[in-house]
Amino acid sequence: MSTNKVLDITPIKFDGEKLLLLDQTKLPGEEIYIEITTKEDMWDAIYHLKVRGAPAIGVAAAYGLYVEAAKYDGSSVAEFVRNTKEIADYLASARPTAVNLSWAVNRMTSSLEKVCIGTPEEGKEKLLQEAKDIHKEDIEACRSMGEYGLSLLKPGMGILTHCNAGTIATAKYGTCLAPIYLGHERGYGFKVFADETRPLLQGARLTSWELNKAGVDVTLICDNMAATVMKKGWVDAVVVGCDRMAANGDGANKIGTSAVAILAKEYGIPFYMYVPTSTIDLSTKTGDDIEIELRKGEEIYEMWYEKPMAPAGVKTFNPSFDVTDHRYITAVITEKGIVRPPYDLNLRALMKEKEDKDGNCGK
Amino acid sequence: MSTNKVLDITPIKFDGEKLLLLDQTKLPGEEIYIEITTKEDMWDAIYHLKVRGAPAIGVAAAYGLYVEAAKYDGSSVAEFVRNTKEIADYLASARPTAVNLSWAVNRMTSSLEKVCIGTPEEGKEKLLQEAKDIHKEDIEACRSMGEYGLSLLKPGMGILTHCNAGTIATAKYGTCLAPIYLGHERGYGFKVFADETRPLLQGARLTSWELNKAGVDVTLICDNMAATVMKKGWVDAVVVGCDRMAANGDGANKIGTSAVAILAKEYGIPFYMYVPTSTIDLSTKTGDDIEIELRKGEEIYEMWYEKPMAPAGVKTFNPSFDVTDHRYITAVITEKGIVRPPYDLNLRALMKEKEDKDGNCGK
Repeated sequence: MSTNKVLDITPIKFDGEKLLLLDQTKLPGEEIYIEITTKEDMWDAIYHLKVRGAPAIGVAAAYGLYVEAAKYDGSSVAEFVRNTKEIADYLASARPTAVNLSWAVNRMTSSLEKVCIGTPEEGKEKLLQEAKDIHKEDIEACRSMGEYGLSLLKPGMGILTHCNAGTIATAKYGTCLAPIYLGHERGYGFKVFADETRPLLQGARLTSWELNKAGVDVTLICDNMAATVMKKGWVDAVVVGCDRMAANGDGANKIGTSAVAILAKEYGIPFYMYVPTSTIDLSTKTGDDIEIELRKGEEIYEMWYEKPMAPAGVKTFNPSFDVTDHRYITAVITEKGIVRPPYDLNLRALMKEKEDKDGNCGK
Repeated sequence: MSTNKVLDITPIKFDGEKLLLLDQTKLPGEEIYIEITTKEDMWDAIYHLKVRGAPAIGVAAAYGLYVEAAKYDGSSVAEFVRNTKEIADYLASARPTAVNLSWAVNRMTSSLEKVCIGTPEEGKEKLLQEAKDIHKEDIEACRSMGEYGLSLLKPGMGILTHCNAGTIATAKYGTCLAPIYLGHERGYGFKVFADETRPLLQGARLTSWELNKAGVDVTLICDNMAATVMKKGWVDAVVVGCDRMAANGDGANKIGTSAVAILAKEYGIPFYMYVPTSTIDLSTKTGDDIEIELRKGEEIYEMWYEKPMAPAGVKTFNPSFDVTDHRYITAVITEKGIVRPPYDLNLRALMKEKEDKDGNCGK
């Protein structure tokens, strides 16, 4: 088993001065990095989905906050902190429902309150350190999820994925694609099937792009072809991300995920959901309590197309997520370990452990 | 329960002289009829899918053959018959794998051999009558399937369909959409969900167009949203067409059909496959013996789009059909009646009955 080169797609680059983001709206046609020099640049990049994926948004926003806050040239610490908080609130408004965004900018501003800051310069250093920590921790979390996930896979396996929970949705490696990249670096020779993921085509535009670029063997299919590749025996495992997991293990993810889970169950294929602990919400009892965003019909019959593909005024139903029932999920992979059913007990135990550990850090 | 107006979408129009076909490649944007005046027009219309759907191709080709054959201005019956057969072979070459096409043109030429023809004019009359018969029989078969199918449905039901087996795929009513149109005429108030049907979008372009035009309540969804509308309890029955059914009841149909069947089973929803007896092939033992056409990857990532939606050179897998296992099929609806499991026995019994009846007609 030969090894392959290490993954070198870097969606967020910061050299201490210059913040560069891979513009995901230009993929797969163009690979363009945009420079973020102002808070307006950062807001726009988040709002227009140039950076997307909860972890990637958090990391980018942390650096973006630092870049703007570091411009402060006064001498008042109080004014510097107030100013930083204003920038944080402004950035958080770009996508109010993105939990990671508000979490990241709040962590940045909170860092200024934990230690005694003598000068604005010290505050800037603290912010930079915090942004770097957020970045480093995200890479570590993804790597950890990847190692846990890889322990469930074997060389040569066929793996099907839906949507994009890959390296460009995080600081590096991704969530559900992390085991694929780690396995690839070690020469595992996975064969990946990427659902195109209608209507926004994250699977075609992003997943097939990043796996292809990294040299992973990837085959693009339409969502409705997943049953056929499973029936042919080409799929040994399904890996998907998660936007929010309820206390009972029901997981909301990109529309179409629940159908893949049901098909996997029918064909006896394990279905693994990759869920950073930040995505586990014990205050949500079941998937029924998760509100699903409904989007415009134009995304189904106009977006990307040369001309409309349905008659004007046709009714549509366009939910952006669905909930996969916990009984279809073989295992939940987090950065803290693998969780198996019964999820109601085991997710709670994992989060308790996490809380205890976090507590030890003096937070 | 009020009644609605009778279905008035006529994909094939022939007034004795002028043959007009609804150009399906222009839908849903434009509703254009093309006139067929030569065998080349007819060949082109079939080849370029301006007319599509097995029954519609058969009916159109029968009229197209008559239109060209009727131009013969000699006086030799032998030459007229030879000439007609040449036209038939030419038309059949437009889509060699379309069984209905060769069946229809062969039936036309055979009609010239069954009776004694004294003059070419008598031959022309015979051809015209045969084309009209094929047309009329197709409408009757669809109507019959519609009545049988309607007996399984109740007013107000939610019905999900995949691809297009509608009125424009036949002479009138369609196969699996026939019960919906008949119910609509009687004010049943069905709520239909149409899968867009990637990659060729027959559901968006054709099914949502024709149901919408006929005044049926139709909601367009992406293929990967079917599980969600089922889970919500909005779907009481699934109706789909069939391209070829094996002796054991396994049915090949548009890619994605088998996934819909598995989801329907999971949610306890009856799954009805509409199968004209001409589509039942007892010489094919099981679905494993049905060859599935693989098509170009461009259909997945380029067709219809403003620009490519996947990186250049990405691998694809693009099967145009899949096989739905007979155990997911609640009932098979044919123009001769409803067939229930065990299909291996009951399909054979139905076809035996049909053969006996056909035998009585002196063939």
